[in-house]
Amino acid sequence: MVVGGGFGGLEAVKRLKRAPFEVTLVDCRNFHLFQPLTYQVATGGLSPGEVAFPLRTIFKRDGNVRVMLAAVSDFDLDGHEVQLRSVDGLPTPGPIPYDTLIVAGGSEYAYFGHDEWRQHAAEVKSLESALGVRSHILAAFEAAELESDPQRREAQMTFVVVGGGPTGVEMAGQIAELARDTLRHDFRAIDPRTGRILLIEATDRLLQAFPPSLSKKAMRSLRRLGVTPLLNSPVVGLDDGGVTIGTNEGKSERIPARTIIWAAGVTASPLAARLGELTGAEVDKAGRVAVEMDLTLPGHPEVFAIGDMVRVRGADGVAQALPGLAPVAMQQGRYAAKVIRARLRDRDVKPFRYRDKGNLATVGRGSAVADISGLRLSGLIAWVIWVVVHLWYLVGFQNRIIVFTRWFFNFVTHGRGARLITMQEPEAGRGA
Amino acid sequence: MVVGGGFGGLEAVKRLKRAPFEVTLVDCRNFHLFQPLTYQVATGGLSPGEVAFPLRTIFKRDGNVRVMLAAVSDFDLDGHEVQLRSVDGLPTPGPIPYDTLIVAGGSEYAYFGHDEWRQHAAEVKSLESALGVRSHILAAFEAAELESDPQRREAQMTFVVVGGGPTGVEMAGQIAELARDTLRHDFRAIDPRTGRILLIEATDRLLQAFPPSLSKKAMRSLRRLGVTPLLNSPVVGLDDGGVTIGTNEGKSERIPARTIIWAAGVTASPLAARLGELTGAEVDKAGRVAVEMDLTLPGHPEVFAIGDMVRVRGADGVAQALPGLAPVAMQQGRYAAKVIRARLRDRDVKPFRYRDKGNLATVGRGSAVADISGLRLSGLIAWVIWVVVHLWYLVGFQNRIIVFTRWFFNFVTHGRGARLITMQEPEAGRGA
Repeated sequence: MVVGGGFGGLEAVKRLKRAPFEVTLVDCRNFHLFQPLTYQVATGGLSPGEVAFPLRTIFKRDGNVRVMLAAVSDFDLDGHEVQLRSVDGLPTPGPIPYDTLIVAGGSEYAYFGHDEWRQHAAEVKSLESALGVRSHILAAFEAAELESDPQRREAQMTFVVVGGGPTGVEMAGQIAELARDTLRHDFRAIDPRTGRILLIEATDRLLQAFPPSLSKKAMRSLRRLGVTPLLNSPVVGLDDGGVTIGTNEGKSERIPARTIIWAAGVTASPLAARLGELTGAEVDKAGRVAVEMDLTLPGHPEVFAIGDMVRVRGADGVAQALPGLAPVAMQQGRYAAKVIRARLRDRDVKPFRYRDKGNLATVGRGSAVADISGLRLSGLIAWVIWVVVHLWYLVGFQNRIIVFTRWFFNFVTHGRGARLITMQEPEAGRGA
Repeated sequence: MVVGGGFGGLEAVKRLKRAPFEVTLVDCRNFHLFQPLTYQVATGGLSPGEVAFPLRTIFKRDGNVRVMLAAVSDFDLDGHEVQLRSVDGLPTPGPIPYDTLIVAGGSEYAYFGHDEWRQHAAEVKSLESALGVRSHILAAFEAAELESDPQRREAQMTFVVVGGGPTGVEMAGQIAELARDTLRHDFRAIDPRTGRILLIEATDRLLQAFPPSLSKKAMRSLRRLGVTPLLNSPVVGLDDGGVTIGTNEGKSERIPARTIIWAAGVTASPLAARLGELTGAEVDKAGRVAVEMDLTLPGHPEVFAIGDMVRVRGADGVAQALPGLAPVAMQQGRYAAKVIRARLRDRDVKPFRYRDKGNLATVGRGSAVADISGLRLSGLIAWVIWVVVHLWYLVGFQNRIIVFTRWFFNFVTHGRGARLITMQEPEAGRGA
């Protein structure tokens, strides 16, 4: 049984289809979300259907794979059962027995112990939250167009992105392009180009996962796009009216803004901590559970945990955190499937090893940074690689064509097709 | 000033751009919705961004056109002002003065005096409601897959479409294709093909606007798809549990169903009745206001009303209702713009005349009926015409390519890309 239809879980099930046993995939959504592109939904570059793919479709031809729409409420590791809770008001399914369990619960954004901030900030983690951000950003410009009070208008046109990781960088870059380019001629009372886009990072550089030289390049490209990156600026306060950031000299600065997008720290799915409780496996402060070298939990060779909710123990016994990237989850999903298949033939598999294929991040149209096993690229070449890689991993041939079409048009016409304000998300209303 | 960015209002503004005066387009949404295809969003055939186009983009290059996101609260015809109300929590704009006013408020579904039914039925009129219907239909199958009680499961898999007009026929056909074809292999506990799809029509035939021969053809195609059309079956009751229909013999029959889609009668936007009040123009029971031969309101040559919220007075003085179709609204929008431009040159324009270009409706993949000035077509030819016409009128070259791609893949692979359950609509939750 596999919990979670993200990159890790999906990959595991793919490798287990047509195996001589039943596979049940449980997810609380009916689709696999291609998270690396969700931020483009948030800026109207792509439509939801283009970055998400129905799980059932993926396995429709695989009779041994069963997809269940439900959420995990608890594990009974001794009884070999998973307790489920209903989602979206669907009927509640009974507990599911398993022989082998793969848990790929993923992660969510962390608010550094300030969960009250969550309600004031928007996220681009789920499809709905991305749509919320989209409506929010566009509604902010609409509000500014109608706003008579200059101060309020300035707050409407100030966009704060918290977190200088890939998502934050990409998000800030996209908002800048939206304001300076896509929306440039759209309004009469305001000039969208005067909008302020701030990228707030607590540490001394963006894209920590990349070599410093590329962080600098990303900084430069962002500035060129019209983004103002603020380094060494931890967020100390956040509400509907704006953010307060701490500065080096121990002072703090208040930035009035109606749009605040959170892309900072992540914390593992609560399922990780629960597995830690049940097995005594160590759980770090990011909520990640430490798994053995074969990705199983101590004392439970039949239970695997993979993806960005785990740290993997090395030969030295020390649990190491791997970057929370799709390739890591996919390799771990593949590995778990391999171990399960090997066990059928009483074969051994050597410990999991992550093969780093490199790191990619876009900054804007035609601009990206790439760190591919030491090879450092930036600008258009890096961007082309980024496009190719993302189209390649996008699920569904049709989606590939459609996303390519949208990117092509965006590249040529600087337009964004899906700029719709659909008021379906609570925070969307906050745009005004 | 133009109220409403639907087919009529949009066409009027297009014909007035670059005119020697300011044009303000007021709409409560920031996009033009291509309503003839909204039902395909409801069945996952298309994504929202593919049938909707941002209004601002359409007029970005036209300095004299201003788009305002707001709703009309009232008219001051003597003061030549329109009072606005804010939407989506945006700032409330002050009243807008006008020299000439075009009101294109459109229509909404009518519940035959049973407004309490509205909360139990889903619609495919707006983009959000279409997304709601989509989530609702898909959630019904998901619920059936998890449902243990056979009776409840049957209700989950019963889909009722009320109204045998083009939308109802298209909707029923799409649900049938979804169940028999697209979802065919998707589930393990249920067989989607056993789902019941009922199309309920009060009168004695479907597609009243078409010649009887084509109605019969549509009936046959629907049956072939697995839809059960019920004629002479007025809805007498409707709640969360299902519908009750009246039968000829004065008896009534209860149909348990969790999914009820309403595509029956329409009523004009309340703005029509308000204009009637203010000008003394007659308002029929469908809420449509009677306009003069030049589409203006009696005593107010500076106020035009167009689209499916009006009836047009003929030479005989009798107000005639035209079908509530996009071509009618577009021709009227074009006409109003023409009159306004002619007035600048003190020219006269002869009374409005609707040129009937014919009538199209799809029943399913590769099947449609067409009545083009007497020429009656059905089957694949009619469907190809339908495809070409809809792609032609779809706003945005990019959307045309993407929608064509989706249709092509749907035609070839019978798949539907955008089958996502996004729980953003109240009624979406009802699916379970």
